[in-house]
Amino acid sequence: MEAFSFHNPTKILFGEGQISGLGAAMKQDGISKCLMIGGTGSLKYNGAYEQIVRALNDAGVELFESWGVQANPTLDKVKEIIAQVKESGVEAILAAGGGSVIDTAKAVAAGVFLNDPWNAFTGTEKIRKAMPIYTVLTISATGSEMNGNFVVTNMQPKQKWGMFSPLVYPKLSVIDPSLQNTLPFKQTANGAMDAIAHILEYYFADDKALSTLAINEALLRTIVEMTDRLKRDSKDLVARGNLAWSATLALNGLSAVGLKSGDWACHSIEHAFSALHPEIAHGEGLGVIFPAWIEYLSEKYPTRFLPWAKNVWKEDSIALAVRRFRDKLQRWGLAASLRDLGIKQNELPILLDMIMVQPEIGGVFKLKKEEVRSLLMLAF
Amino acid sequence: MEAFSFHNPTKILFGEGQISGLGAAMKQDGISKCLMIGGTGSLKYNGAYEQIVRALNDAGVELFESWGVQANPTLDKVKEIIAQVKESGVEAILAAGGGSVIDTAKAVAAGVFLNDPWNAFTGTEKIRKAMPIYTVLTISATGSEMNGNFVVTNMQPKQKWGMFSPLVYPKLSVIDPSLQNTLPFKQTANGAMDAIAHILEYYFADDKALSTLAINEALLRTIVEMTDRLKRDSKDLVARGNLAWSATLALNGLSAVGLKSGDWACHSIEHAFSALHPEIAHGEGLGVIFPAWIEYLSEKYPTRFLPWAKNVWKEDSIALAVRRFRDKLQRWGLAASLRDLGIKQNELPILLDMIMVQPEIGGVFKLKKEEVRSLLMLAF
Repeated sequence: MEAFSFHNPTKILFGEGQISGLGAAMKQDGISKCLMIGGTGSLKYNGAYEQIVRALNDAGVELFESWGVQANPTLDKVKEIIAQVKESGVEAILAAGGGSVIDTAKAVAAGVFLNDPWNAFTGTEKIRKAMPIYTVLTISATGSEMNGNFVVTNMQPKQKWGMFSPLVYPKLSVIDPSLQNTLPFKQTANGAMDAIAHILEYYFADDKALSTLAINEALLRTIVEMTDRLKRDSKDLVARGNLAWSATLALNGLSAVGLKSGDWACHSIEHAFSALHPEIAHGEGLGVIFPAWIEYLSEKYPTRFLPWAKNVWKEDSIALAVRRFRDKLQRWGLAASLRDLGIKQNELPILLDMIMVQPEIGGVFKLKKEEVRSLLMLAF
Repeated sequence: MEAFSFHNPTKILFGEGQISGLGAAMKQDGISKCLMIGGTGSLKYNGAYEQIVRALNDAGVELFESWGVQANPTLDKVKEIIAQVKESGVEAILAAGGGSVIDTAKAVAAGVFLNDPWNAFTGTEKIRKAMPIYTVLTISATGSEMNGNFVVTNMQPKQKWGMFSPLVYPKLSVIDPSLQNTLPFKQTANGAMDAIAHILEYYFADDKALSTLAINEALLRTIVEMTDRLKRDSKDLVARGNLAWSATLALNGLSAVGLKSGDWACHSIEHAFSALHPEIAHGEGLGVIFPAWIEYLSEKYPTRFLPWAKNVWKEDSIALAVRRFRDKLQRWGLAASLRDLGIKQNELPILLDMIMVQPEIGGVFKLKKEEVRSLLMLAF
């Protein structure tokens, strides 16, 4: 088992009505003014906004609001919110939404102390400080509620880049699965695929972290089963809760223990899809590229991929497991190919250039430009 | 899924040679003087002591030493070390050893701020403050390296009581599995059984936390497989590492998510065994009572116990799974009955009185005195 360090200081409050604990927690941390960052308004339909206002009001924490974060959040929005933070003099950020909102909050919390928030991504400036972040999660997918990762898109030039800092772990995240009851199933499924992808980025990296691999198989099976249950009944709170917690664990460090830094080639590839076409949901893009990536690599490294077939899909053949995986995603209503995603064949060279900013991608299974070209063709 | 809160702030450094990071971490936390608490000297054989001295020396952290903590650590020892802490003026505790040493360190770290450290256990005083704790783990068993639990025995009267405080989570724990290569197999097996017991205390508590149950099954299977491998080869570092990490996860909060507060009847019962006979290893005592407890309760609640038989032991019958569990423990060289543990029949009434300080034990499956008597007879 590879050496590792593990440290996850985020506190989780999980369950229905747990938003009520948010104000008291902020007060205890000495926060008197906070800026809530929200998306495009679903908070007002699922009941979260009302509960947040009440919790902060009860605790005497003054609430400022910044709305309008979109999927694939942009650097421009981050800069706009940083200006609001400076103007209002808030002491904390409350991210109320999904991964895009939480990622934006992280870029803001760190970026407020930098000359330019994009400098953290380019490496020009180092993150040495960040404002405290609290979150209320409204869709389980990215795991951003319990990690130090964030992804932001710079529109000039189109770059969707990821970043990690131990300073932006949320102090406290509220996961109330019942807030997700009103999600369209497609969004639940995209979130589930995102969580599956996080686990898979680590799963194939090493075959000696047997404890982590066993946990990851348990999480993969649970995510698939719970998503199937939610397809039948979107208000199945047992399934909703177990999917939510599995998605959090999928990228909170636990699934990575002893598995190096993971591979992340599929994420690099998908980031190009949704940078070029911001309407592509991250999870759906991953659902197209991941089965193709497994199919492509398993020819070369069958022993590394066979346990996934056996222990997750109960299949003795990788090809059959890939088919089961693809069928499952299609039954969830997700795209099966790049074409389904709305990508045109003449865009493949553009995508390839966007993906190959380095001569190779993939932390474990190195892929050169020609190989990524073949992989894109396979996924097309 | 039951509501829960989760917060585990302990940082883990895992792998061979990781003790070297200890001094720098302490220095970064502003520690200039620390008291190392040790057991009966194995640190000097497994190489840990030498590495600790070097790491602290390199970082300029002054090291004081307190040796002689025994299995089933006592309140008297805690008081003795508190006096040393006060005299030396150290700012932190470094627990170098197994669960007994770490538990002692926690009782010291909190007890130093109380009128009497036992007051925390009786509830007379509340823990409001604790010294920072660092640990170097030398045997994987109790999970104390990544939780806020500690158990201490008061010899007058004989009471082995457990305690929890969020203030005594270690700041940093070093888990170097190679330090455990020199352990006699019996101790490895006792530790494995202790970790199994921690998972089982939660596992049967609820059937809706499907994500946690799947993780717990993964951990149970991994612990059994890795212990089997270590029986064949005590220097199998892959098995050693995966057993160590599984034992940490068995009681760091993860295995408890959505499973109420667990049951803990078997722990209450075992604490009486080893309070009466301090030579009984906690893990071995648990290995006697747990199969009996499952056998006893599964007659009344078969549906609650069947998933354990199926998913951990691949048996369709609980009785067969209990037999497999008992056989496994016996093959590991652990006692199969109270009699094997050296307990005499005329001691059963004494044990029963020690166990039944309340009219019932068991957080999930309530057991009255008569039922515990039957259970003890079954285990005898």
